[in-house]
Amino acid sequence: MHWLIGLDWGTSRLRAMLFDGDGAVHETRSRAWGIRHLPEGGFDAALSSICEGWPSAPVLAAGMVGSRQGWREVGYVDTPAGIDALAAGIVDVRSADGRRVGIIPGVRDALSVDVMRGEETQVIGALALRPELAGHVCLLLPGTHSKWIDVRDGRIVRLATMMTGELYAILREHSILGAGLPGATASALDTDAFDAGVRAARDSAAAGALTKLFSARALMLDGRLAPGAVPDYLSGLLIGEELRAGLASGWLRGDAPPLLVGDESLCARYSRAATAFNLAKLDTVLEASAHGLWRIARAAALVGETPLVYGEH
Amino acid sequence: MHWLIGLDWGTSRLRAMLFDGDGAVHETRSRAWGIRHLPEGGFDAALSSICEGWPSAPVLAAGMVGSRQGWREVGYVDTPAGIDALAAGIVDVRSADGRRVGIIPGVRDALSVDVMRGEETQVIGALALRPELAGHVCLLLPGTHSKWIDVRDGRIVRLATMMTGELYAILREHSILGAGLPGATASALDTDAFDAGVRAARDSAAAGALTKLFSARALMLDGRLAPGAVPDYLSGLLIGEELRAGLASGWLRGDAPPLLVGDESLCARYSRAATAFNLAKLDTVLEASAHGLWRIARAAALVGETPLVYGEH
Repeated sequence: MHWLIGLDWGTSRLRAMLFDGDGAVHETRSRAWGIRHLPEGGFDAALSSICEGWPSAPVLAAGMVGSRQGWREVGYVDTPAGIDALAAGIVDVRSADGRRVGIIPGVRDALSVDVMRGEETQVIGALALRPELAGHVCLLLPGTHSKWIDVRDGRIVRLATMMTGELYAILREHSILGAGLPGATASALDTDAFDAGVRAARDSAAAGALTKLFSARALMLDGRLAPGAVPDYLSGLLIGEELRAGLASGWLRGDAPPLLVGDESLCARYSRAATAFNLAKLDTVLEASAHGLWRIARAAALVGETPLVYGEH
Repeated sequence: MHWLIGLDWGTSRLRAMLFDGDGAVHETRSRAWGIRHLPEGGFDAALSSICEGWPSAPVLAAGMVGSRQGWREVGYVDTPAGIDALAAGIVDVRSADGRRVGIIPGVRDALSVDVMRGEETQVIGALALRPELAGHVCLLLPGTHSKWIDVRDGRIVRLATMMTGELYAILREHSILGAGLPGATASALDTDAFDAGVRAARDSAAAGALTKLFSARALMLDGRLAPGAVPDYLSGLLIGEELRAGLASGWLRGDAPPLLVGDESLCARYSRAATAFNLAKLDTVLEASAHGLWRIARAAALVGETPLVYGEH
């Protein structure tokens, strides 16, 4: 059996996947060892520990691990960027325990001066799962840094970043909007508060939702928003602003709704918010990273050209 | 001599002014004793210490000291709000050393569900300094929470909050945009970087400047923006967004430019940014808090009806 170890190594988390020779994920492990939060021993120790007990195999990594603050800085592939350019741009690093670790390059949109690392691998995975869309589609990858990505003929041609997730986190943790709220719980989404936030963003029209940001506090002080509902109101406001701005800029189009790629619960929020903008129900792709890592590994001949068990329709 | 002690007591700073019987500021003291950063002994100790050696006098305070987290919660006066309603809404608290401290209420715009505390006093001061504008003017008070305030016939009729200053601070301190930058220095404004940020916001048009936020990092990674220039680029982007949104929403108008009220260096940034929007050079009022405290004290009969040395034209 020819195994492959795939790493989705971002700023805050390291996720490792063991693929069998058919591209099926045999096991997934996740640790809070993002590149800013490494264990003692750094990258080597993190890799060695998360792969403990797994068979010897080539390792392919995507994400911020290839940034200036990562294990080794790997350049960007310029748009238009397809799977072949990404595979050709892989840079190897040798770990202390003798593994060869390939790091996938990021993608740069030189025109808009925007960059990404890790999302290119999700795009490749999503296109493998939705090959009928590869001709022309806009992908929306929600997250700490949401990405809007235009694909034509299977290649990334344009990208833009919205700091929606990071804005939410720092407003919640460090601004007056988060002061005096009850501690975060794992409770269900407060749909009323979320929807109210989405509508406030939508109705801000060309002025934009920053003109409504303080309402998250003013409504609470006025008794119209319970303190516990403020976070979901804020979430709706910021996700709504992302959709409003996407539509206003022409990136997102009502007649060709974006394909959502990412975490299930976060995609569900975007899909819910989209209804307030009269967008058709958004199609969602999950587990795109794993599919992308496998595809790029195959394109780079890190694994054999065996048929895929899934990912093909 | 009938003295007055005026306090401008916000979230991060306490400023105390000793007025003589003619309304002239005899001495000003400033300490980092905002209501979130009180010394041991709390409000009583802060007041007693900052007034040390000053003559016995009535005390009048404006700002967050009257908020739920302040010395005593004082309600809001609803719009339309003029000096008489503010004076009538003053609530007294008695300090441990026996002083009577009057706290000026905030103002609430019930229609937009927005509130302010402290800025109402600056508005009263600014109108005293520019009485010819009191008929109809929009004031722009830049700061942690910028306020847009419409005045008609000397009364506050409408208000809106932009979290521009707080957004700048938390993005600089807690987001990826501030990571790896050289430490803050007291160097002069980088006008090239600032102007580039303003233009990026202006040119974002109806999409809004959140679509350009990540450019503060992408331009640096691309070598087009020096790391030391990122803060002023970000400052220009956020101040530019405030002006863009103000114009898009109709709050700010090119044919009736807003009156800037506040800190000199911050107002200078707004005035500079305004030129990119083809706004006429903005008139600026400084030291509005002191003038407002004196005016409201007089309206509340805390001091006699003696003529003002300044503040009248």
